[in-house]
Amino acid sequence: MQKVNIEEKLSLFSDYWNPRIVGELNGQHVKLAKLKGEFIWHKHDDEDEMFLVLEGSFNMEFRDKTVAINKGEFIIVPRGVEHRPVAPHEVSIMLFEPATTLNTGDKVDTLTRNNLETI
Amino acid sequence: MQKVNIEEKLSLFSDYWNPRIVGELNGQHVKLAKLKGEFIWHKHDDEDEMFLVLEGSFNMEFRDKTVAINKGEFIIVPRGVEHRPVAPHEVSIMLFEPATTLNTGDKVDTLTRNNLETI
Repeated sequence: MQKVNIEEKLSLFSDYWNPRIVGELNGQHVKLAKLKGEFIWHKHDDEDEMFLVLEGSFNMEFRDKTVAINKGEFIIVPRGVEHRPVAPHEVSIMLFEPATTLNTGDKVDTLTRNNLETI
Repeated sequence: MQKVNIEEKLSLFSDYWNPRIVGELNGQHVKLAKLKGEFIWHKHDDEDEMFLVLEGSFNMEFRDKTVAINKGEFIIVPRGVEHRPVAPHEVSIMLFEPATTLNTGDKVDTLTRNNLETI
């Protein structure tokens, strides 16, 4: 039973769109990721996803609107809802989602990441 | 699909040991709470619990050790493990846990809170 220091974990990687696992509970993963640029449109058929901004800001695009998420804010994207994160500048986020969640959801892409690293 | 500003939600209440629900996903609740003083020893038989410090710091006491959790740090307390949060000064935290989780776990106490408010 050890605590996790988020800043310390964030210092361990610098690549974008490649979430790391930093905790697991109740079948859910706690992940950290750095984002910059545009992701792809996708959805998760069976998983709700939570994005919490730790540093910076990004836009969560939906088909009908865009929501700017700033440091200290979070958004929950319900299962089945198409979304696309876009980060004009680097942003650090915490993700909270079922351990089964694939980052690109229903899409397979060069951005798809399997077998995420635990740090 | 709206974002949640954590600071704004924290400004809506000031009582201690009374978590508010600020999000729900995959059967889990995202809660905010303010702690000050000593809680009671308890455990959750079927739920892992995550405590993320947003402002301040507190001590998580276990039967065999105490872990100081500071701002920007979190700890996951596995199901079945007795614990007692102690906050010498006011601390604001975010909790992730199953929607079924009772704050005092296997104990019923004056500190027990049922039917948590969603804000």
